[in-house]
Amino acid sequence: MPCKNCQEKPVFIQISNVKLCKSHFIRYFEKKVLYTIKKFNLIQKNDKIVTALSGGKDSTTILYILNELSKKTRRFTISALLIDEGIRNYRDKTKEDAISFCSQYAIPLEIITYKKELGFTLDEMLKISKQKPCSICGVFRRYLLNKGARKLKANKLATGHNLDDEAQSILMNQFRRNNETSARLGPITGILDNKNFIRRIKPLYLLTEKETAIYAFLKNFPIQFTECPNAKQGYRNDVRNILNQMEAKYPGTKHSIVNTFLENLSNLKEHYSHQSSLSSCKKCGEPTSKEVCQACTLLEEIKSILKK
Amino acid sequence: MPCKNCQEKPVFIQISNVKLCKSHFIRYFEKKVLYTIKKFNLIQKNDKIVTALSGGKDSTTILYILNELSKKTRRFTISALLIDEGIRNYRDKTKEDAISFCSQYAIPLEIITYKKELGFTLDEMLKISKQKPCSICGVFRRYLLNKGARKLKANKLATGHNLDDEAQSILMNQFRRNNETSARLGPITGILDNKNFIRRIKPLYLLTEKETAIYAFLKNFPIQFTECPNAKQGYRNDVRNILNQMEAKYPGTKHSIVNTFLENLSNLKEHYSHQSSLSSCKKCGEPTSKEVCQACTLLEEIKSILKK
Repeated sequence: MPCKNCQEKPVFIQISNVKLCKSHFIRYFEKKVLYTIKKFNLIQKNDKIVTALSGGKDSTTILYILNELSKKTRRFTISALLIDEGIRNYRDKTKEDAISFCSQYAIPLEIITYKKELGFTLDEMLKISKQKPCSICGVFRRYLLNKGARKLKANKLATGHNLDDEAQSILMNQFRRNNETSARLGPITGILDNKNFIRRIKPLYLLTEKETAIYAFLKNFPIQFTECPNAKQGYRNDVRNILNQMEAKYPGTKHSIVNTFLENLSNLKEHYSHQSSLSSCKKCGEPTSKEVCQACTLLEEIKSILKK
Repeated sequence: MPCKNCQEKPVFIQISNVKLCKSHFIRYFEKKVLYTIKKFNLIQKNDKIVTALSGGKDSTTILYILNELSKKTRRFTISALLIDEGIRNYRDKTKEDAISFCSQYAIPLEIITYKKELGFTLDEMLKISKQKPCSICGVFRRYLLNKGARKLKANKLATGHNLDDEAQSILMNQFRRNNETSARLGPITGILDNKNFIRRIKPLYLLTEKETAIYAFLKNFPIQFTECPNAKQGYRNDVRNILNQMEAKYPGTKHSIVNTFLENLSNLKEHYSHQSSLSSCKKCGEPTSKEVCQACTLLEEIKSILKK
């Protein structure tokens, strides 16, 4: 059976069993990103968008599409921000990919390193701390992305989060009784009138990990399809596995989880709306719901272990 | 390490690592049922409660506890209702257990059979219909339980649903984008002013399957710990497996799912409150949201296959 739109060989079969060739898959993918942007009102005129770029398939894909859209519409600007955690044999490689991609497409790229900003690479922290890699990295990455985006005077931070990431996050919060954290999920997060916290947008929100991988592959982006060496250790990895198990047997499970969640999201946000009034960390000035932000607290912990 | 309350040998270890001996486990279990009844306001004075009894561990346990409570408080009455689907080598056995249990405790027992009420046993239906056993059985069991409870002039129907059942149902609805069905979950369902639909209560709502099995075992109820031969085929079984997988690695997962759900339930119920206005099936008079209820529709389908 050929592509549903032409006679070409299909490269992708949708859940609904529709087959698409290379060029029609690319068209489908890009249309769905545009649909997501419009449906959730992710981009406004004169937005200054910085894309969190890791050099992997998801962030490279969304940076590419947003950059094309920016050139075409001239309604918003695009740049890229890479956080170098200092993960040997991984980030050093994807960083090179990111640099060559941005140079190829003439996209301004800012690189912020853990080492310079925090004093330690992630690898160094992991030698000291007993915490799981993803717990440490999650805190500092979010922290440095927000700080970096503000430094670049951006008003939005685009990330490569896809449908799989969101479905995993929804289940993780549910499995650990964390409705409050779920209230901060969704295709666009953050509050309009908080200038400290740069709003996050997820234009790949409705596209699966698999679709994004195929798109990146078909577009021949100069990237490696590697995974962070720490990813296998986390709670997310277990949730990813059971979710992939269910999706394989019952296609559409991930979409259902995200759509069910979207139906409840406004109620959830309303319920936790008092949480949205963030203050500034008295140490670093970054947005936080506590007196001292999580990043400063965690960094203090790591430093105090070192002193002992 | 002995029981936390005495020096006896523990029979159960809670998630919080607290150990309990036989008599303290039984006390803990019964107290938690009472707590559930009070917290969710499951029982009022002068309630006429019929318990859906299968002869298995869950329904026998809740019938026993409610019967004891009824004798002690004299605030409500208890009887039992068994739906005999006609599943050979399974229901015939648990039915005998149910009969002997009710006779032992002098509890009035009503038995309703698929064969007499619908014209076919479940086994006969399965030979004809292509639908999955649990899909057919779910519809007709609910139908006959409600009809039977009304016939017995009960105002509440107690079921043996435990925390595992609820956690599974929550995920199943989420994985199949069925928020509307989720809005009908919870420890007490049905609407106060709909006389056609008997309200369901789930006094084992906060107790796990494992806890209930241990209770039934320790109380030495005259039951067999068998499983319906059709249970392995269903969607629920796959969800049960991944949930047990996660619970084994991360104890407390099932509680988190149910508690997270309870935090959202009132919003969900409000959102789907228009659904609560049930009408009567124009064929059989039972409550339904459609013109003809699901049971009548399904029975028509089965009969029409037979005619061909």
